[in-house]
Amino acid sequence: MPLTPAHRRVAVFALLIGASTPLAAQPVDPLVTTVRAYRVTHAREILERFAAFLALPNQANDSLNIRRNADFLVAELSRRGIAARRLETPGAPPAVYGELRVPGAKRTVLLYAHYDGQPVRAIEWKTNAWQPVLLDGRLEDGAREHPLAEGADPSHESWRLYARSASDDKAPIIAMLTAIDALRDAKVPLTTNLKFFFEGEEEAGSSHLRAVLSANRELLASDVLLFFDGPRHQSGAMQVVFGVRGSYGVSLTAYGPVRPLHSGHYGNWAPNPALRLARLLASMRDDDGTILIAGFYDDVRSLSAAERAALATVPDVDAALREELLLGGTEAKGAALVERITRPALNVRGFASGGVGNAATNAVPTVARASIDFRLVPNQTPARIKELVEAHARAQGWHVVGDTAEVTPALRRQHDKILVADFAEGGYPAQRTALDEPIAREVVRVVQRAVGDSVALLPTLGGSLPLAIFADVLKTPIITVPTVNYDNSQHAPNENVRLKEFWQSIEIVAVVMAGMGMTP
Amino acid sequence: MPLTPAHRRVAVFALLIGASTPLAAQPVDPLVTTVRAYRVTHAREILERFAAFLALPNQANDSLNIRRNADFLVAELSRRGIAARRLETPGAPPAVYGELRVPGAKRTVLLYAHYDGQPVRAIEWKTNAWQPVLLDGRLEDGAREHPLAEGADPSHESWRLYARSASDDKAPIIAMLTAIDALRDAKVPLTTNLKFFFEGEEEAGSSHLRAVLSANRELLASDVLLFFDGPRHQSGAMQVVFGVRGSYGVSLTAYGPVRPLHSGHYGNWAPNPALRLARLLASMRDDDGTILIAGFYDDVRSLSAAERAALATVPDVDAALREELLLGGTEAKGAALVERITRPALNVRGFASGGVGNAATNAVPTVARASIDFRLVPNQTPARIKELVEAHARAQGWHVVGDTAEVTPALRRQHDKILVADFAEGGYPAQRTALDEPIAREVVRVVQRAVGDSVALLPTLGGSLPLAIFADVLKTPIITVPTVNYDNSQHAPNENVRLKEFWQSIEIVAVVMAGMGMTP
Repeated sequence: MPLTPAHRRVAVFALLIGASTPLAAQPVDPLVTTVRAYRVTHAREILERFAAFLALPNQANDSLNIRRNADFLVAELSRRGIAARRLETPGAPPAVYGELRVPGAKRTVLLYAHYDGQPVRAIEWKTNAWQPVLLDGRLEDGAREHPLAEGADPSHESWRLYARSASDDKAPIIAMLTAIDALRDAKVPLTTNLKFFFEGEEEAGSSHLRAVLSANRELLASDVLLFFDGPRHQSGAMQVVFGVRGSYGVSLTAYGPVRPLHSGHYGNWAPNPALRLARLLASMRDDDGTILIAGFYDDVRSLSAAERAALATVPDVDAALREELLLGGTEAKGAALVERITRPALNVRGFASGGVGNAATNAVPTVARASIDFRLVPNQTPARIKELVEAHARAQGWHVVGDTAEVTPALRRQHDKILVADFAEGGYPAQRTALDEPIAREVVRVVQRAVGDSVALLPTLGGSLPLAIFADVLKTPIITVPTVNYDNSQHAPNENVRLKEFWQSIEIVAVVMAGMGMTP
Repeated sequence: MPLTPAHRRVAVFALLIGASTPLAAQPVDPLVTTVRAYRVTHAREILERFAAFLALPNQANDSLNIRRNADFLVAELSRRGIAARRLETPGAPPAVYGELRVPGAKRTVLLYAHYDGQPVRAIEWKTNAWQPVLLDGRLEDGAREHPLAEGADPSHESWRLYARSASDDKAPIIAMLTAIDALRDAKVPLTTNLKFFFEGEEEAGSSHLRAVLSANRELLASDVLLFFDGPRHQSGAMQVVFGVRGSYGVSLTAYGPVRPLHSGHYGNWAPNPALRLARLLASMRDDDGTILIAGFYDDVRSLSAAERAALATVPDVDAALREELLLGGTEAKGAALVERITRPALNVRGFASGGVGNAATNAVPTVARASIDFRLVPNQTPARIKELVEAHARAQGWHVVGDTAEVTPALRRQHDKILVADFAEGGYPAQRTALDEPIAREVVRVVQRAVGDSVALLPTLGGSLPLAIFADVLKTPIITVPTVNYDNSQHAPNENVRLKEFWQSIEIVAVVMAGMGMTP
């Protein structure tokens, strides 16, 4: 087989990070065949268990249901002989901890996933978010529903299970539980201690994560922390990811008159909060995505040579993505997605004021709200971003407060432009693990043996996980192994997981569990 | 009584427009006492009839219910011996026409009101918009509900009836019907022919008005067209209004990726439609309300000396309004509301994209929508405004189309920035009647005799009525006589009418009906 440009890029990268063989040339681990046989034989019960888990509503703020998820996980771990319990923090969803000690093992691997999911706006879902539905393809292509049992047919790889958290992260959790079963069934000896940590408020900002990690630092000690979260590369290729962007959310509120006013009788005199907030947002970012907040880029650490080299291992999918997403262009003309996600970002998640379409009325709205998420890179910190955003607004004449409760009638009469910049949602900085740590190279090798194909190496994921908190408290190298299909609509309506990737994720997790304990 | 500054301003104005006596010094017409006695005696049946009318849902696009309103009006006119019928235009709510010919009368007065109402967003209403509720004060002050019959007590002037169109315009329509009854009851002879024209799609843009007027030009011929629409001056004073701003609505839609994308994985690469649309809006208007669209002010006719003088008759309520509306400032520092509404305006009625608050998800939204209403002054035209808005967007790189149906996948792949600027809602130019026409002076005198108090004279209302179309087709002087309380939340949730103004509106309409026929 001739070397393709992609192979050459991978080979060059392998030399750069000191790998002994080109990354794309690993033989498939024989264990894959063993695990595959198990998951084919037990496909129906695996799917049923998966569906039962997906049927549990899992918004972090839904305190009753989120505990039903935690109880499910404790039960599932326990019945596999894994010492399991809830790690409680007052006022927060519990984390779930499990531990499987292997006599004589010299290494401990900590496996992470989160069991909570993004909020659901039911009106935007075609199905009920918490009633998993099996479709024989993509919903937007008119796929039809089938009984769950039909998903057990191994030839139905393109079928998808639709439900909130189908991909993000309940699929990897079910994969871990099933991988244990498959290894036991085949009597494959574990050679490494396994620890499981399932978080229950990742999608709500992980505001209690530091507390729970700090309180359980010894319990969670490990040689490497593997994150099973996020999607595969858009090319479909497996990827191993060495970092994440940080995340920081802010909710902005601007005020108009205390009651809606006829736009004819008062328009052009009463301040329009939608326009004022639009002007503020417009001043914060240009059309190319460059953030215009003074000082925003001051703390940004530039990419290392190894990180820049890794970018070249990543398949170029931009043109195909633009085609699929119906995009006539992207934000920074000519810049590749893989490069863009190494930079910080400002995303407007939502903007709401007054009514549009048939709900529009000729009125000056009373209030305008916007929701923004910042994506941070090393060495930006949420605290500094908060300062800069507030200073930016103040420089434009806004009187900035942190909570809508502070906006009293007296304050409204006193200040023309009041902005509530509410950062209560919280956030965390970015995290990156060096690509050439020995344990990092071992993880890459094991994953390649599981998939038998080229693996893309990403210095950072575009998305965010609270990895900086883990790194800070646990002082362990952190590597992310995303296993689900990239077009899974995570964080959006109609989230799903494709069965092909779901099934393979069981094989990947099993090979990692069995393989990471061996001496490199 | 010493002359107050307001009296002096009125006197100066009276000289300017050639009135023979100061405007504030008219005696009350004895007829007011007669009509008051009637409406006090019959208060309960008047309120019941009013409530029955308000209980008919009246959005123009609700074709079944809007006809129930028209049928109600035809029946009410007919049972008063007024020749009444629907004026039909295909695909539109009917207008309702009524005619009362008076033998020997030399003049004809055409009375206008609209019976349709603004759209209702039920979630924002504290009551059901079409189940009228009587409260013993303002809803926001915690007023309590009472049986409708208690509103008949004449001392309950501060009570309010809550329902969509309670003020805009069902109150004046009931006032007209009741005024006829009161004059009949007192055997007061009419001396002028009366024509009634009730429109059914004013709040939906009056898109069929020109057709119905043109088809009935002879039928609707009159010496003066009196518009009973809009609120009183914010000071509570009666006002007579000689013009209106034009109105032109546009719905703007911008597109992001075809499905919501995780803002971490795709943010900063996939275009964010909320930000793009915010930037477009921000470029269209500054914080002071000055419109930045090139050429926007080119056609604006400046105020005449008489119009500028009339502004001085209008009580200054700006400080009180700011206090009430909790405004720390207004859009143009130091400029009075009465002066601001003589200028054109751009109001953002609504902006919607993605989710905010608890509904916010970490996603790049697929679409952003904004709704804008322009207020026009002489001699701006909707056609020219449309050209200017489109040119403004094109100059910023938008590919502008007029209808979301044109936005095919192929078009989306072809153009980076696609803007749907949908002007289908329609609009109309401004209209102003000269303040010193003899018939204008007569209307002012009659209104003053009805209220026995100073009357503010406004060159233009801030709001819009399709008066230009009337002027264009019917060639009749047009004068607006607003009768309802100004704080009625028209065009907004929880619309209401205060009983004090409702009861007085019957007296005003009756005095106008009986008085306009006399020789000046």
